[in-house]
Amino acid sequence: SKHVKTKVLEFFSLLIKLGQDDPRRVVHSLKAGLALTLVSLFYYYQPLYKSFGVSAMWAVITVVVVFEFSVGATLGKGVNRGLATLLAGGLAVAAHQLANLSGRIGEPIVLGIFVFLQAAVSTFVRFCPQIKARYDYGLLIFILTFSLISISGFRDDEVLELVHKRLLTVLIGGSTCVIISVLVFPVWAGQDLHNLIASNMEKLGIFLEGFGDEYFKMPEDGESKEDRPFLQGYKSVLDSKTNEDALANFARWEPRHGRFQFRHPWKQYLKIGALTRKCAYRIESLNGHLYADIQAKREIRSKIQETCTTMSMESGKALKELSMAIKTMVKPFAADIHIENSKSSVKNLDTLLKSGLWDDETDLLEVVPVATVASLLIDVVTCTAEIAESVNE
Amino acid sequence: SKHVKTKVLEFFSLLIKLGQDDPRRVVHSLKAGLALTLVSLFYYYQPLYKSFGVSAMWAVITVVVVFEFSVGATLGKGVNRGLATLLAGGLAVAAHQLANLSGRIGEPIVLGIFVFLQAAVSTFVRFCPQIKARYDYGLLIFILTFSLISISGFRDDEVLELVHKRLLTVLIGGSTCVIISVLVFPVWAGQDLHNLIASNMEKLGIFLEGFGDEYFKMPEDGESKEDRPFLQGYKSVLDSKTNEDALANFARWEPRHGRFQFRHPWKQYLKIGALTRKCAYRIESLNGHLYADIQAKREIRSKIQETCTTMSMESGKALKELSMAIKTMVKPFAADIHIENSKSSVKNLDTLLKSGLWDDETDLLEVVPVATVASLLIDVVTCTAEIAESVNE
Repeated sequence: SKHVKTKVLEFFSLLIKLGQDDPRRVVHSLKAGLALTLVSLFYYYQPLYKSFGVSAMWAVITVVVVFEFSVGATLGKGVNRGLATLLAGGLAVAAHQLANLSGRIGEPIVLGIFVFLQAAVSTFVRFCPQIKARYDYGLLIFILTFSLISISGFRDDEVLELVHKRLLTVLIGGSTCVIISVLVFPVWAGQDLHNLIASNMEKLGIFLEGFGDEYFKMPEDGESKEDRPFLQGYKSVLDSKTNEDALANFARWEPRHGRFQFRHPWKQYLKIGALTRKCAYRIESLNGHLYADIQAKREIRSKIQETCTTMSMESGKALKELSMAIKTMVKPFAADIHIENSKSSVKNLDTLLKSGLWDDETDLLEVVPVATVASLLIDVVTCTAEIAESVNE
Repeated sequence: SKHVKTKVLEFFSLLIKLGQDDPRRVVHSLKAGLALTLVSLFYYYQPLYKSFGVSAMWAVITVVVVFEFSVGATLGKGVNRGLATLLAGGLAVAAHQLANLSGRIGEPIVLGIFVFLQAAVSTFVRFCPQIKARYDYGLLIFILTFSLISISGFRDDEVLELVHKRLLTVLIGGSTCVIISVLVFPVWAGQDLHNLIASNMEKLGIFLEGFGDEYFKMPEDGESKEDRPFLQGYKSVLDSKTNEDALANFARWEPRHGRFQFRHPWKQYLKIGALTRKCAYRIESLNGHLYADIQAKREIRSKIQETCTTMSMESGKALKELSMAIKTMVKPFAADIHIENSKSSVKNLDTLLKSGLWDDETDLLEVVPVATVASLLIDVVTCTAEIAESVNE
């Protein structure tokens, strides 16, 4: 039981941490509770219950499944659900009418064929990636509503009224969600995407700023190199594609908010994100060299130490400036200077290498790791310049 | 209208392509239609309808939302839904009883508080990543069922019977899904994960086998280097983490099938997948050098051409062998030979570089790109050896 107690305590401290990391989560939970309590009034309040009856259930169901963390996700699901219910309801009424013509025995057979066909076709269409990204939920609701209404029609001839009530309650539930998510401490997916892109860039910048010193620091300096958590921040950038795609998808549903228009160029963010990730792949290779067993000799390293450190430092600063520029939405003038600096240190490195400064001790084997680091840094500088270009667009 | 016509035709050819790429999609759609048609019998067949009435609706809803592409996903959702309905139903009955004590006016207030509290707490718990991965759907259903049943209790005192019917119909819907997905052409997430890991490794192998020739081929050879689709296959490996995680999650729900036990070490697959991705990051850097503007001089390149091509070729072959070994589930003996070969060519390269063979023309600037490629290939060889070790485990 002591074991269970520690488990429970651990779980609670995890929950507290989740809340502290992003207090919007706590607010979201309260908002979800509020929305649900509001729509449950349809049951408690007699006049409302009279007009909807058990159909009020659909308002509750809609709130539970449609209410999402960001405004965009909620709006997207709400619109999907509303349109799908309308469309499926209409088609189900038509199917019911057709089935009615075939008599009491033929009816379930005709209905069964309809249900089978639409379920199979809609399920197949859901595999289409473009449709899956934006309308997957709508298709699910389409299958659900069409099946429920056309089947219910077999037992209940008031199909039109059923559709009407269903649509109305879904609209009520959906708009409750949308209104609460927009009015009460809204969480904008667009803003989140914006911040994610900026902070990913910043993470790469932090790595690059620290890399030079870390790489050229001699192991004799004491402590092991492995315990540098600030150098590991970039790792999350490697896998952020899914997250970026989802946020961009949600953001497209969002109306004008803050500094963002309705048709803000969200695709540009994905482009910048892809370039940032490309840069992160190079940094992952660089990171491998930070902890490599075979390190170049001190003399060789020290020759290019200055230029490499400058390259790394300046591209890091440029990325940080770009990140700041995105955050504050101003043109990144300061970044240009750092990019120029990093480019000119690439040139310095070229000159340094050309000068044949080190012919005397040409153990090329020892030059290789340093050369690789230098070359990866050159790649990083190129990536940074590309990112800067994209940000400027 | 001609424009619309082309759009529609495009859409249909896209659908046909989706079906041809993976015929299991067509089968899955038919299975979904079948499952839905089966549960709709509860409406058509009088004796069944008599015992369930409109509650039969929940069987239909369950089938629509629980039926997923793979057995693991279906089972996971089904179990989640069943357990959540049971738990939420029980708690809702208790809440209803408590609320009953507080009289006709107090009842909706007490119920409202319960609904608000459980919705807020459950919504918050859904943010917990470990829980989200496996029980997200269960928590959603928990909120839904608790709210619906405790609220309905206000209008209908037969709460226990309501819970009983709900649970039974959910079980019927859920087991219909599970039975159909297991018996009719089952799609196993575990098998898919297994294939994905193997094919990702193969893609890297294909790149490496082609890289040497491609890199050392002189641009004068005619056509541009950009049009090599077989060299771009590895790109999909970079972003496959989300997919792997999802499949591993589903696979954990799956019973013994084919050559897989119930508790097959799915985590090992994720580990191998992570190593494969690490290797893919290096390959992404290598790929950048394939199309770089600054290329080393022919003489310098030709000196290391042989060893580098061997390194690349042998590690490529090793990866392909490892991929085959995973596919056929036998020990990868042949891979060990290729790994040894690639390691010995790393040593050859070391000797070559140490020999100072090229002191006469030390324009180090031109050595840098070649050195980088060599060094990245050394990294790839190391990664490959790591992957081989993991596969052997």
